[in-house]
Amino acid sequence: MVKEKIKQQSISPLTGKEYVIPDAVDDKEGIDSFVAQHPEKKVVVVQGLGFVGSVMALVVANALTEEYAVIGIDLPTPFSYWKIQSINEGVFPVIADDPKIELFYKEARRKNNLYATCDPYAYSKADIIIVDINLDVKKQSNDDGHLEDYSVDLAPFKKAITSIGTYCKPDVLVLVETTVPPGTSQKIVRPILEECLQKRGLSADQLKTGHSYERVMPGPKYIDSIQNFYRVFSGTDEASADATEKFLRTVISTNEYPLTKLGNTQATEMAKVLENSYRAMNIAFMVEWSRFAEEAGVNIYEVVNAIRMRPTHKNLMLPGLGVGGYCLTKDPLLASWAKMNLFGSEEPLTQSEKGVHINDQMPLFAFQYLQSQYEGSLKDKKVLLLGVSYLNDVGDTRFTPVQGLFERLVEAGSEVTLHDPHIAYWEEKELRVNNNLTELLQQPYDIVIISTGHKEYRNSPALIKTLLGHPASFVYDTIGVLTNEEIKELKTKHIVKVIGRGDL
Amino acid sequence: MVKEKIKQQSISPLTGKEYVIPDAVDDKEGIDSFVAQHPEKKVVVVQGLGFVGSVMALVVANALTEEYAVIGIDLPTPFSYWKIQSINEGVFPVIADDPKIELFYKEARRKNNLYATCDPYAYSKADIIIVDINLDVKKQSNDDGHLEDYSVDLAPFKKAITSIGTYCKPDVLVLVETTVPPGTSQKIVRPILEECLQKRGLSADQLKTGHSYERVMPGPKYIDSIQNFYRVFSGTDEASADATEKFLRTVISTNEYPLTKLGNTQATEMAKVLENSYRAMNIAFMVEWSRFAEEAGVNIYEVVNAIRMRPTHKNLMLPGLGVGGYCLTKDPLLASWAKMNLFGSEEPLTQSEKGVHINDQMPLFAFQYLQSQYEGSLKDKKVLLLGVSYLNDVGDTRFTPVQGLFERLVEAGSEVTLHDPHIAYWEEKELRVNNNLTELLQQPYDIVIISTGHKEYRNSPALIKTLLGHPASFVYDTIGVLTNEEIKELKTKHIVKVIGRGDL
Repeated sequence: MVKEKIKQQSISPLTGKEYVIPDAVDDKEGIDSFVAQHPEKKVVVVQGLGFVGSVMALVVANALTEEYAVIGIDLPTPFSYWKIQSINEGVFPVIADDPKIELFYKEARRKNNLYATCDPYAYSKADIIIVDINLDVKKQSNDDGHLEDYSVDLAPFKKAITSIGTYCKPDVLVLVETTVPPGTSQKIVRPILEECLQKRGLSADQLKTGHSYERVMPGPKYIDSIQNFYRVFSGTDEASADATEKFLRTVISTNEYPLTKLGNTQATEMAKVLENSYRAMNIAFMVEWSRFAEEAGVNIYEVVNAIRMRPTHKNLMLPGLGVGGYCLTKDPLLASWAKMNLFGSEEPLTQSEKGVHINDQMPLFAFQYLQSQYEGSLKDKKVLLLGVSYLNDVGDTRFTPVQGLFERLVEAGSEVTLHDPHIAYWEEKELRVNNNLTELLQQPYDIVIISTGHKEYRNSPALIKTLLGHPASFVYDTIGVLTNEEIKELKTKHIVKVIGRGDL
Repeated sequence: MVKEKIKQQSISPLTGKEYVIPDAVDDKEGIDSFVAQHPEKKVVVVQGLGFVGSVMALVVANALTEEYAVIGIDLPTPFSYWKIQSINEGVFPVIADDPKIELFYKEARRKNNLYATCDPYAYSKADIIIVDINLDVKKQSNDDGHLEDYSVDLAPFKKAITSIGTYCKPDVLVLVETTVPPGTSQKIVRPILEECLQKRGLSADQLKTGHSYERVMPGPKYIDSIQNFYRVFSGTDEASADATEKFLRTVISTNEYPLTKLGNTQATEMAKVLENSYRAMNIAFMVEWSRFAEEAGVNIYEVVNAIRMRPTHKNLMLPGLGVGGYCLTKDPLLASWAKMNLFGSEEPLTQSEKGVHINDQMPLFAFQYLQSQYEGSLKDKKVLLLGVSYLNDVGDTRFTPVQGLFERLVEAGSEVTLHDPHIAYWEEKELRVNNNLTELLQQPYDIVIISTGHKEYRNSPALIKTLLGHPASFVYDTIGVLTNEEIKELKTKHIVKVIGRGDL
């Protein structure tokens, strides 16, 4: 049976190169050889080579006050296998505006202290293992984008920890950076590792388990968001906290960005989901007030800017098309789930859950507004979507709210053209994205939607001039990038609508 | 009938002096005489002599770049009449920690440019009328403190505006500072005034109606919260906005705290309720997370402080007993009401309303927690409540959350002793409050509750020492004023519980 299976492939979106995924993942030789080249160095294994792990591996390979031998590990799946090969072949698997990425990768290549593999045998060599895998929330939403239910599937996470426990040294430090439901380090990670060691006849007395969540921000400060930013950490016991602190001091500029130690791992786990829930809730708050502003003939941007003069209100958000990315869309749910499922509470975090509910519906609101402008039918409308990423000046499509708007437009029969300066291929939708705005703007459109606040759409006289040369259309700025002057100009020919501006 | 009516009295809580409220309020002579003494000055009438209006009148009487003759006006009710008499007799009706209050009042007395009355004839003399009356929300809550419904009663507000329209000059500037439902200036104030002028056969062409909400904070910076703080303003038309700006420039340090002009009165009205809703919602958010922290064995204070290191999260709140004061407890509802009732929206501001719901239940949570510590019965327990005011270092009991806790304790049969260094008389409960902490602490208590964060309870070795001399009791810090060291000390004898600290 196994032999007849068609070999799975993993294709690099960067080089187009195709890799056949092997049936077995025996890389003992490669790992042994790599480790043998660094006899004096501690070995750090980074589990998970996604947005966080791959760059974390770079930062550790370029640690500030110690030399490490770093092994990145991920699963042999179509999604991840090419990354492993790519790292070893000289192409770093993350494109980013941050020039430090290339710099750090080159330096690691020069020192030959970064290796990638999918063989869990690597864990047996590790002095420190950093867990940077995902822990997902599955949302069940209805057609309105209304969140009806959600579930947290711990199985893949538990499997990954078991894999560590099956191979690791008994005195390893396992440092979890993954955003997890509060309680996970103590109630899940530690017990699994102890059980694995016990099965192997080993003592867990020297085992160290820490938690220190990352605040990685893909974009022009990608490396700095790890190396030069505040960190919070904890351990399941004092020895674990000490080991975690000692390690973090070698990779983070702790003089400038002092570490904060919290009392237990629940506290650091809670801090991460609390800070993201806070942000998600503040966005949801502004969603509702933006709609009120539209009803009441108010420019919400000038209102928010007026309020932000108060130091106590500086963090008010601005309206937008929706919330995207890996954190704000799920962390409030992770937290609420943990409250009820790991600590037996009968009450969810209602305010935080509500925030996710409201945010999830934002793309629907935008779609419905457009629909209302065309007597309910958007069939055959030529639509230009400016921006696919959920974040300004970054090519990150994970849970982008543009997806909800895009899918509804397509379903309604619109002919949608996508532009994003940072994205050539939209993985989630398996679609090519055009990077050439000038070329795209040679065609007229019925509807032009600014869906991401990229600098290419902000203060762009060329964009305004080109649009003014087009036949009359509907310009929908969902981000508020158009200035008053630009709106005035565009209005001489087009219909202009900006989310949160009832004064237009 | 009228003659047989028992004369109503108004008693000054400051001097104890009793005033008989007259049947008629004819003060034409007094007003004429006052105005005649200031022939060169513009007359400013401040409507409402509460927490805002009385101090606003002082600030205008001490304007920075112009000399005004100021008349404060309020209704001849038991609650307000003494204030009018008191101002004219040399006792300012507000006690505050701010020494500027006395200074400003003395200066106004010296210049003889502040007068108080309850005769609406005063409006006929005004060049500028400032509206500083209340606009209330009536909440219907069940026994659990759960908000079931609410209503906005505009009648008293409309009556007050009608009173102005009945007397005012046709070219007066009516500047509303009251927190109102967005839409009020344009849909209620302006039409009422126009109709009144029309009935009097006068044109409204020169009438000016502005809106500029106050951000008055009773306490040690009372005057500064008006004179030295940011202001947002607008007018129902350009002439109104200009007149408002011109006036504000004479009373506020606009060089240091620049004015912000918004596009219309809906925008400024919305700004006020939005900023208060934001704060109320952030508090509600922290309420839920505090409870989670208690369940998960986490110290929420250290979590919040760790997160606040991020500039984007500096405004995270800390937990407490509840939300009090005149603004945060009602403004989200005012806004939601306006959205539906003045602008016909079908959707309330769910996130903001939810914030009020959660906050309203906080005193109940504290009570239930205490109850759970005594097998459900708090009968005959001797309880010392440290703090009645809703705000640190201020004597303001308006909608204080302490009331909800106090009433439940009394109802449960506890014997409650009140202390507050800033409050001698709790108006809403018609109760004397003891100011002498040393005296109160001569008695032991079963339960000591820190319910306000006054500095008298913060870092007070004397308080800790006295409590250590008491028999074992339950110390419940609902504000988080106790330090780790103080908790450690107290725990040698007492049971100590701090809201949001599951780590104790």
